[in-house]
Amino acid sequence: MKITIQNGELEQKVGIALKGINGRNSTRPILKCIIIKAKEDEILLEATNLEIGLRVKVDGTVEEEGCCAIDGKSLADISRKMPDGNVVIQSDEKMAVISGKKVKIKLPVSDVENFPGLPDLTEMEVSCSVLQGMLKDALNGVLFSIAVTEVNQMLSVVHVKCEEGQMRLTGLDGHRIAIRALEVQTEEMELNLPGIPLKEIAKLLNNEEQKVDLCVTEHLACFLMPDVWASMRLVDGKYFDLSAFLQDKTNRKIRIDKTQLKDSVSRALLLLADKVQKPLVVQVAENKVTLEAATTAGEMSESINAVTEGESGLLRIGYNPRYLMEILQAVEDETIDLSLGGANDPCLIKGMDYLYVLLPVSLGKTEAAL
Amino acid sequence: MKITIQNGELEQKVGIALKGINGRNSTRPILKCIIIKAKEDEILLEATNLEIGLRVKVDGTVEEEGCCAIDGKSLADISRKMPDGNVVIQSDEKMAVISGKKVKIKLPVSDVENFPGLPDLTEMEVSCSVLQGMLKDALNGVLFSIAVTEVNQMLSVVHVKCEEGQMRLTGLDGHRIAIRALEVQTEEMELNLPGIPLKEIAKLLNNEEQKVDLCVTEHLACFLMPDVWASMRLVDGKYFDLSAFLQDKTNRKIRIDKTQLKDSVSRALLLLADKVQKPLVVQVAENKVTLEAATTAGEMSESINAVTEGESGLLRIGYNPRYLMEILQAVEDETIDLSLGGANDPCLIKGMDYLYVLLPVSLGKTEAAL
Repeated sequence: MKITIQNGELEQKVGIALKGINGRNSTRPILKCIIIKAKEDEILLEATNLEIGLRVKVDGTVEEEGCCAIDGKSLADISRKMPDGNVVIQSDEKMAVISGKKVKIKLPVSDVENFPGLPDLTEMEVSCSVLQGMLKDALNGVLFSIAVTEVNQMLSVVHVKCEEGQMRLTGLDGHRIAIRALEVQTEEMELNLPGIPLKEIAKLLNNEEQKVDLCVTEHLACFLMPDVWASMRLVDGKYFDLSAFLQDKTNRKIRIDKTQLKDSVSRALLLLADKVQKPLVVQVAENKVTLEAATTAGEMSESINAVTEGESGLLRIGYNPRYLMEILQAVEDETIDLSLGGANDPCLIKGMDYLYVLLPVSLGKTEAAL
Repeated sequence: MKITIQNGELEQKVGIALKGINGRNSTRPILKCIIIKAKEDEILLEATNLEIGLRVKVDGTVEEEGCCAIDGKSLADISRKMPDGNVVIQSDEKMAVISGKKVKIKLPVSDVENFPGLPDLTEMEVSCSVLQGMLKDALNGVLFSIAVTEVNQMLSVVHVKCEEGQMRLTGLDGHRIAIRALEVQTEEMELNLPGIPLKEIAKLLNNEEQKVDLCVTEHLACFLMPDVWASMRLVDGKYFDLSAFLQDKTNRKIRIDKTQLKDSVSRALLLLADKVQKPLVVQVAENKVTLEAATTAGEMSESINAVTEGESGLLRIGYNPRYLMEILQAVEDETIDLSLGGANDPCLIKGMDYLYVLLPVSLGKTEAAL
C-alpha cells in the first residue's frame, strides 16, 4: 500500500478514527489499531473497540492499493508531529513507513486479518435525519444522567423514541430522569442506545449546520456524517415505563434565576463535595429559596429571591448537590421552573424541550448530625 | 477580628498565599492554614510549609483587629466562588464567618499559636535588585535541570554567585549543567537556594516591569516584591567546582536552527519516551545532522541542514532525548551553537547569557540491540 495525504488532513482524520479505539475492550492489539484501507481512489480509516465502529474517509492519493493496521495511538502522535506538507504512508507485511520531507518513521504493523470488520452499509435506509448541533445538545442533555456501571444495563442506555415528527431521548440512573425532545423528520421507532459509544458520537457531532442521518436495522444503529460513519449495537429489551413518574402531581411551583441558583449550589459543593451522602438542604418559603449545607468542613446558608406559587407552608427538602448541579449545567434557559410536592416527592424541572426529574434524599441523618 | 475586602482582591491574594502551603511538609494542620492578621490599617496573609514562608499584603478595611488561621485550600475555594462585591471575614476563637451579599459560610479555625511564624524583616538589607521578568526567565532556565530527589542535597539547589554587576545561576543534576547569567546591581555573594521553594518564587515573579529585591542574611534569603514577601532557608555547604567541565575543549562546532532540531527531537520522543535508557543518536557529518531512534515501538531517522566547523569526520553520539528537549525549550535564540568533542565528551550549548552542558550516554547497548 502507498498513499499520500496532506499532514493537516491526516492529523484530523486519525484523531477522529482514534475515538473508535477508546474504551474498555482495547486489550487485544488489533483493537488498538487503526486500519488504513486504500482502494481505487478512496482512502478509509477504520477502527472499532467492539462497542463502536468508525469509518472515516480521508482526502488523499492512492499510489498503490492495499491495507495495513497501525497502532492507533502511535499513528495519532506521529501524525500530529509530522512537518508541514505531504505525508506518505507506505506499507508491506511487516512495516509501515511514514515519511515527510526529511523525516522517516518506521512502525511495526499488525495482521489486518484479525480485524473484526465493520457492518455492511449497503442495505441500510435512513430512518431519521437531524442537524448535528441539535442532536449533540440533546444527547449531552441526557448522557450525564445515565449510570456508568452495568448493574442494570437499561440504566446505562439512552432510550430513543421517534414518532409524529418528534424524537424523545430519555436517560435515568435511578436517582434522576432526563428527557430531551427535538423536532425531526423521522420514522416511528423505539431503540436503546448504549451510553458509552453514544458519548463518543456526541463528541463527533461537530458541524452544527450539517445533518447527521440515523440508520437503524434490527441490531444496529448507524450515524452517517459526511466523511464519518459510526455504528453501534442496540441494547435489546424493554425500557422502563416512566408514566407514573412523569405525571405532574406537584402542588408547589418555583420560578428562579438559574445562574443565581447554580452559583449558590457551586458554593455549597465546596463544603459538600467530599462528604458522601451529605445532602444540600433547600428550604422553600414564600418568594424565597434558602440553600443550606453543613459538614465538618464548615456551614453555609444563603437565600435567593424566587417566585413561588401553590402551597405556601415552609418546606425543607434534601438533594444530592452534584445531581442538581448537573441539571443546572445542562439547561440553557436563564429562568427555570421547579415543581415540588412534599419532602419525599420528586422535583420536576420542566422547559419547552426538556424535563428533568430529581429524587430527593432523606434529611434524617443530616438533621440529626447538626 | 473583622475585615472587609473586595472579592477580586481576596481571591488574588489568597491564591498567592496558597503557594506557601504547597509542599511536602503540609501534614501538620496549621501548615495547611493561611493566617489572616489584621492590625491597625494593615491586613496580611501568612503561610509557610517550613521550606518557603510567604507574607502577602491585602487591600481592605480593618474593622476589628485580630488574627485567625483558616484552612488555605477552603479559603481559596470559597474566595473564588464569592459573589461580586465586598467580602467580610469575621472570626472568634472557634469559627470564621465569611459573608458577602446573601451568602454566609462558617469555617472552623485553627489555633494561631501553633503557627511557626515568619522571620523578622526589620534588620535585613537589600543585597541585590533585579527586574522580575529577567529573574523569572533565568530561574526557569536553570530550575528544570536540578534533581528532584535528595540523594545529594547540592544536586537540588540553584547556586547563585553575584560579583562585578553579574548574577550567575547554576543548577546541575549529574547528567547536565545549566548556567544563566544576568546583569544586576549587586553585592558580592554566593549562596545555595533550595530548588523546591525557588520554583514557587519563579511562579510569583509575574510583573515583568517591577523589581524584586533580594535580601540575604546568614541563613535566609528573602525575595521582596510589592505586596508579597517570600523567605527561604539557605542550604549550607560548598557548591561543586565546575571549572573542569566548563573549559571548552571541544573540537567541532555546529550552528543549527533550534525549531527544526526541537521538532525533530519531539518526533524522536514519540518512540523513545517510554523506553528508559534508549538514547537518541545524533550523527554529525559535514553540514548535516541526522537524528536516529530505534525501539520496539518503531524507528525514525531524519536529517537537518547545519553549519559545521572543526573536525570533519563522522561522529555518532548518544543523548537522553528528554534532557536535550528541555534545554531546547529553555533557550530563546532561534539559532543555537553546539560544541562537541568525541562520543564520550559533553556537548556545550552556549549563547550570550546561557551555557548548557549535556553529558552523552553510551551507544553500546543501542547499537547491539539494533
